[in-house]
Amino acid sequence: MQFTATNDKTDAKVAIVIETPDKSEEIKGTGPKHLFLQGLAGCTGGAVLFLLQKMRTEMPSKFMVDVSGKLTTEHPMVFENIDITYRFEGNTDVETIKKAVKMSEEKYCGLTYMLSKVTELKIGILLNDKTIER
Amino acid sequence: MQFTATNDKTDAKVAIVIETPDKSEEIKGTGPKHLFLQGLAGCTGGAVLFLLQKMRTEMPSKFMVDVSGKLTTEHPMVFENIDITYRFEGNTDVETIKKAVKMSEEKYCGLTYMLSKVTELKIGILLNDKTIER
Repeated sequence: MQFTATNDKTDAKVAIVIETPDKSEEIKGTGPKHLFLQGLAGCTGGAVLFLLQKMRTEMPSKFMVDVSGKLTTEHPMVFENIDITYRFEGNTDVETIKKAVKMSEEKYCGLTYMLSKVTELKIGILLNDKTIER
Repeated sequence: MQFTATNDKTDAKVAIVIETPDKSEEIKGTGPKHLFLQGLAGCTGGAVLFLLQKMRTEMPSKFMVDVSGKLTTEHPMVFENIDITYRFEGNTDVETIKKAVKMSEEKYCGLTYMLSKVTELKIGILLNDKTIER
């Protein structure tokens, strides 16, 4: 089953797929819970980059946010926890990264703030593939 | 600023745009909070259709879910409330629709369930453009 999602700000269309018992159906699009987490990743990722810019540090050469969630097995299937890993590459200052991530979580990304009230957020930071202790 | 979002189940890519001070930038993609709400709409919309099928009622000829949220004006900008309006067209039985929407909210859509704990959800139902009292 498929929905088309639109919004009132841009002309972007997003295909949403819902898993149906008919597995022969070709899956084109993104599942609702994936979209939900992608929105979360975009929110906090955007906030982190915005904050790094504001703090006038060297910007990362590459930046990714990995988000995954563990669902309960019984209905209502909610996220028991959500892992958010920020992956930076380049020469950005470590302390500034830690500060930006913390500020995003606590104040500048409303979605992580909201979800932190109803599920456990597990935050990780990698700089050039090395874990940064928070 | 733009991210590309991918997921581990399908080959769908979603363009996420983050508003930046440089307004000259062409906006192509969906904002993070829009994506988040689209995920919510897909989750509850899929659950409602699944439930209608299970209850063997006549399926709607058309089905849309409108979702919008009111954000606070100060950081962290969270949803003060979220409006979810289910719009059905066709000859689907009214009582079955009401039941399916209620079951989606309370049990079968984990995302509405989670968000109902941190914000006010305002639910509306329209059948052939007429409001259905819940």
